[in-house]
Amino acid sequence: MSELRKDPVVGRWVIIAADRAGRPNDFSERTLHHGGRCPFDDGQETLTPSETMAYAAPGRSPNARGWYLRVVPNRFPALTIEGALLREGVGIFDKMSGIGAHEVIIETPRHETSMGDLSRAEVESVLAAYRDRIRDLKRDERFRHILVFKNQGRAAGATLEHAHSQLIALPIVPRNVIEELRGAEAYFTHKERCPYCDIIAQERKDSVRLIFENEHAIALAPWAPKSPFETWVLPKTHAASYEEAPDALRSGVAEVMRVVLRKLDVALERPPLNYMLHTAPLRDKPSSYYHWHFEIVPRLTGVAGFEWGSGFFINPTSPEEAAAFLRKTEVG
Amino acid sequence: MSELRKDPVVGRWVIIAADRAGRPNDFSERTLHHGGRCPFDDGQETLTPSETMAYAAPGRSPNARGWYLRVVPNRFPALTIEGALLREGVGIFDKMSGIGAHEVIIETPRHETSMGDLSRAEVESVLAAYRDRIRDLKRDERFRHILVFKNQGRAAGATLEHAHSQLIALPIVPRNVIEELRGAEAYFTHKERCPYCDIIAQERKDSVRLIFENEHAIALAPWAPKSPFETWVLPKTHAASYEEAPDALRSGVAEVMRVVLRKLDVALERPPLNYMLHTAPLRDKPSSYYHWHFEIVPRLTGVAGFEWGSGFFINPTSPEEAAAFLRKTEVG
Repeated sequence: MSELRKDPVVGRWVIIAADRAGRPNDFSERTLHHGGRCPFDDGQETLTPSETMAYAAPGRSPNARGWYLRVVPNRFPALTIEGALLREGVGIFDKMSGIGAHEVIIETPRHETSMGDLSRAEVESVLAAYRDRIRDLKRDERFRHILVFKNQGRAAGATLEHAHSQLIALPIVPRNVIEELRGAEAYFTHKERCPYCDIIAQERKDSVRLIFENEHAIALAPWAPKSPFETWVLPKTHAASYEEAPDALRSGVAEVMRVVLRKLDVALERPPLNYMLHTAPLRDKPSSYYHWHFEIVPRLTGVAGFEWGSGFFINPTSPEEAAAFLRKTEVG
Repeated sequence: MSELRKDPVVGRWVIIAADRAGRPNDFSERTLHHGGRCPFDDGQETLTPSETMAYAAPGRSPNARGWYLRVVPNRFPALTIEGALLREGVGIFDKMSGIGAHEVIIETPRHETSMGDLSRAEVESVLAAYRDRIRDLKRDERFRHILVFKNQGRAAGATLEHAHSQLIALPIVPRNVIEELRGAEAYFTHKERCPYCDIIAQERKDSVRLIFENEHAIALAPWAPKSPFETWVLPKTHAASYEEAPDALRSGVAEVMRVVLRKLDVALERPPLNYMLHTAPLRDKPSSYYHWHFEIVPRLTGVAGFEWGSGFFINPTSPEEAAAFLRKTEVG
C-alpha cells in the first residue's frame, strides 16, 4: 500500500506509491499492452476495473457498450479506498496510510487524443461527471480534498492517449491549495472583495489578456503566468465550490473550456497540456473569498526545466502576446 | 527589458523575459549556431560576453585561453544589471523592472556533458566560484537573494550541453525560499533545534536513507521526496549562509557532491538533472534555524507531469529503495 509522507520543514505531503511503476504506457516501447487494444475504447470495457459510474442510454447494464462517458477506478491507484486512515510518527517524521480514491473519467467512447476534439455535449458531460463524483466522494468523511485534473500527452505525464481526466480524493488538503486559500483570504481581509472577482473585472476592462468569454465564464492569460500560454477559465458568478455550480453556469464554462482547448490545439499544434480544477476543500467554507476556476498549462518543449522544480519561474512569453495570439486563432 | 510580476492571489513573483525565446539550443534543430562551435570550450572565449571572473594561471589576460573556470554574463539574461529598480502598480496588479544579474559558471574548459565527469579539484573550484560570486553580488544593495542552480541535459531545461551552472541575483526573495525559511523557523520555535540538524541526526541513526557521507557532509534521500532519486547534500556543521562556509567544509561538500553525481550517472545512465543551492537570503539572518544545503533532482522520463505544475507529488520510488540502490552503486 502507498503512503502519504510529510516534509518536516515545509509541511508538504507527497504520495509514495511504489506500485505505480509498472503501469502501462502508450508512449513506452511496451505499446502493445492488451494486444494493442486501448482499454478506454468502446467495446473494451472488460479491460478496465468495474465502472463506478457511467452516462449511458437507459437500460444499459454496467460495463456493457452503449455508454458515452464512464468513470472507473484507476488500475494503478496512487491511493486506495479500503482501510483505516492511520497516522504514525517515525522519529521526527510523519506519515499516514495511503487512503484515498483515484478514478479515471473516460470522456468519450471514441479514441480521441485531445479534449478539444470532443463535442460541446461531451465536454458538458465531462464537467457534469466531475460534479457527480465530487458530490458522491464528499460523503466519505475521511476525505478532505479532491483534485480533478487532466494530463494530455506524454510530456504532460499521460500514460494513455485516449481522452480522459483523473480525480484523486485525499485525506489531507495539499499545501498549494492551502496557500491559494490563504492568499485569497489575505486579499479579502485587505479589500473586502474576492481577488478572482477583482481579476475578472480588471481583465474585462483592460482586455489585453482576455482570450474568450460568454455570458457565464471568461478565459484569460493571467497577469503572472508560470509558463507560456497558461490560461485560466473562471465562472463570472462568485462561488467557492465547483460542485454547487448551477447547470447553466457549468454549461457556459464547458463552452469556454472547449473553445480555449481548440484554440490551443490550433495555435500550438496540439500541445501536451495539464489542467487542474481549483475548488474549495470539502470541509471548509471559504465562501466569501474563494472562487473556483480551471487553470490550463500547456507543456511546451524546452520550457519545463529548472522552474518546475524550484518553484521560481522564468516565462519567455508575455500573457499579452499569448492572449493576442489566442484571440485571433480561429476555431470551428 | 524583462519584468518581474506578482501573482495577486498567492504572491509568487515570475520573470516575464520575452527576449530569451531566441537563445541558442544544442538540442533544437538549429544546432549549428556559431558554426557548430561550443561557446564554452577552450579556445572559444570570444563567443561569450566578456568574463566576470576566471580561475586561471597567473598572468593570463581576461578572455584568453589558459583558464580552468570562467564566469560570464548570460548572453540571453532573464534579468539585466543596469537600471533602476522601479516598482509600479497596474490596476490591481504589481510589477517591478527586471533588474538582477544572470551569470553562467563554465565549470571546465573541456567539453564535458556531466558534472560527474569533472575532477575533484574542478568540483571544488565550482563550489568556490559560487562563494566568490555570491560575496561580490551581495555588495549590490538592490539584490535580496541569489539562486545558484544547474540544468544538466535537455529534459532538465539546459540549452547547452557543456558542463555549466547558473546564478540569478534577484531584487526579491522567491516565495519557495520564504516558505522553507518559515517552515524551518516554525520547527525551531517548537523544538528549539534546527530541523536540518535533526534530519541529519535521524538519518545517521536510521541509515536507510543514507547515500554517502564524509567528515564534513552527508548525502541522503529525503523522507518525503517529490520525485525518484531526489538527493540532498548537507554540511554537518550548522550554518545558514553558504558563502560563509570555511574552505575545508566546502571541500568536503564538494567530495560528497561529486560522489553522488557519479553514482547517479552510473545508476540512472547519465540522467538529466537539476540541482539548486538552498541558502539564506542576502539581507536576512536566519542563523539559528536555517541550514544551507543542495537539493539534486534527476528528471527521469515519464515522471515530470501533472506534479510539477500542481505542486502535489506522486512518487513511484521510495527514498529507501533509491538510497539502497545508490549506496551499492560503485563509482571510481
